[in-house]
Amino acid sequence: MKRLINDGYDVVEEMLDGYVKAHPEDVRLSDENERVVISKHLSPTPKVGLVFGGGSGHEPLFLGYVGKGVADAAVIGNVNTSPDPVTCYQAVKEVDQGKGVLFLYGNYQGDVINFDMGAEMAADEGHRVETVLITDDVYSSTVREERRGVAGDVIVLMAAAAAANAGKDLDEVKAAAAHANDNTYSLGVALSSSTLPVTGNKIFEIGEDEMEVGMGIHGEPGIIRKKIEPADQVVDEILSHIFPDMDLKAGEEVAVLINGLGALPLMDQYIMYRRVHDVLTEKGVKIAKSMVGDYATSMDMIGGSVTLVRLDETLKEQLNAPFAAPYLKQ
Amino acid sequence: MKRLINDGYDVVEEMLDGYVKAHPEDVRLSDENERVVISKHLSPTPKVGLVFGGGSGHEPLFLGYVGKGVADAAVIGNVNTSPDPVTCYQAVKEVDQGKGVLFLYGNYQGDVINFDMGAEMAADEGHRVETVLITDDVYSSTVREERRGVAGDVIVLMAAAAAANAGKDLDEVKAAAAHANDNTYSLGVALSSSTLPVTGNKIFEIGEDEMEVGMGIHGEPGIIRKKIEPADQVVDEILSHIFPDMDLKAGEEVAVLINGLGALPLMDQYIMYRRVHDVLTEKGVKIAKSMVGDYATSMDMIGGSVTLVRLDETLKEQLNAPFAAPYLKQ
Repeated sequence: MKRLINDGYDVVEEMLDGYVKAHPEDVRLSDENERVVISKHLSPTPKVGLVFGGGSGHEPLFLGYVGKGVADAAVIGNVNTSPDPVTCYQAVKEVDQGKGVLFLYGNYQGDVINFDMGAEMAADEGHRVETVLITDDVYSSTVREERRGVAGDVIVLMAAAAAANAGKDLDEVKAAAAHANDNTYSLGVALSSSTLPVTGNKIFEIGEDEMEVGMGIHGEPGIIRKKIEPADQVVDEILSHIFPDMDLKAGEEVAVLINGLGALPLMDQYIMYRRVHDVLTEKGVKIAKSMVGDYATSMDMIGGSVTLVRLDETLKEQLNAPFAAPYLKQ
Repeated sequence: MKRLINDGYDVVEEMLDGYVKAHPEDVRLSDENERVVISKHLSPTPKVGLVFGGGSGHEPLFLGYVGKGVADAAVIGNVNTSPDPVTCYQAVKEVDQGKGVLFLYGNYQGDVINFDMGAEMAADEGHRVETVLITDDVYSSTVREERRGVAGDVIVLMAAAAAANAGKDLDEVKAAAAHANDNTYSLGVALSSSTLPVTGNKIFEIGEDEMEVGMGIHGEPGIIRKKIEPADQVVDEILSHIFPDMDLKAGEEVAVLINGLGALPLMDQYIMYRRVHDVLTEKGVKIAKSMVGDYATSMDMIGGSVTLVRLDETLKEQLNAPFAAPYLKQ
């Protein structure tokens, strides 16, 4: 196994321990539950609390986005596994300032079950909790509500955070997150599997010259497996799946996020960005915001995704708000 | 080849094209030379110019650090190849505000020759150019001046930038960079080679269960090749080479940089950080600043390095100064 870890069963605890030791000004672990990463910059004036989360192995997602003006807490599961309900509940207790809490996470069955149970436990103690499921992976279903959440998680978090920071109430923050989600479209391609720390094995096998278009960040099956193609052709294929769904028109504005899945060089990510830029420009679409890097990974998976976000003035402003988490500063 | 590129000969031009399209508010390419990335935030009051550079394939190094209050320009070579002298010269012309220019780059023979020639060309036109070679890789030589530059490049740039922003003159900025360099110690470990875009091949072969301690970021030979060990043991070995050289004492303060070489998960990097933190704490050394992430890569190389920086009050302040380049914001 080409990883630098100790015991595969300890990776999440050791990572969290390292993380809070590296960022002592920004975050701490809950005294009650060491799977809850809490911001040390909770707003001095009460605002809606934002709890972000999911399984481990997607770093800097989710813990890297806990910080000033971004997520108030992240709840952390094992690798590719949902956080448990008690962890979700504990996060609500830690960050509810009396304005309620919004859960934000990608639409995966385990997460839905556990976050919902956590929300019920919190509701029993009088906390108001709402949820927005992130569903940006266009291939995973033709129906928006059934889609998985991938790199769009970060976009939706940014919109919700900007709304919460602006003093909006829970319904309004939820609406802002839902609005961002409804306008976010992603599709990725994987050239390799990540390595699971416990077994040391890959999740799936794929030929040395093969890639899979539409594969999920946990190795969920994609649209087609084929020979690796030149980057421009790969981007064109990704866009050929996003465009019909998004129905993007000349004159519209978008944000573009090129997301590396962990082992794709930044060089390759900018080559992908270039093609997205040129195709959109040719189409008469303006790029108002760009993000390129490893925002939501699958550990050491080689691959990347393209996310397009249809912008209106509100969403554009939200995505350009000031944020100061260790992995999201602007 | 598990990369997403087009023609291997075009990767640098396409990456640069993508980069300036993604960050139009921050950078532009020189009209005279498309291998010079120039900040759009040059200081309104003249200051010492900072030119950073080297071969491609280490992204976000060097171009990602061009921006507000950081590098004024980056000069870009082909993959693992020095920028040419004319490129270095052009960068001086673009960023010299009458206060002179400091060249900062890792100590590699090709870079030394070409930057020196560029400096001579610029001197012939009346520009004052000074150089600080970055030499932080402790294994590469017992003599500081002969060492290679690796992730310490970023540390030295930060110190120089803070001094330049504070209005120091060229000699003082050079002294600040040299001071940072003299106090910076790095050592890395590689578990795989990067993939060269032109040939599609790895630079070197290494067994599935092997790693090489002390290997350089271009695949320069290291100290020892052996079976991959647990992360804590790997960190201990790295520190066992840094400590005698650095002669770190209880009560001292350091900055710690864990650098991923491209394909090492952030999870693993935080597990490494945890061990460094615990060993230093045990030793009575205080960590005053931490940085964890892919700061200086070797494209898709699996591996990481540890950098320790001995701090005094000046250097500590410099490393905590505000910077706003696309890949260095604080």
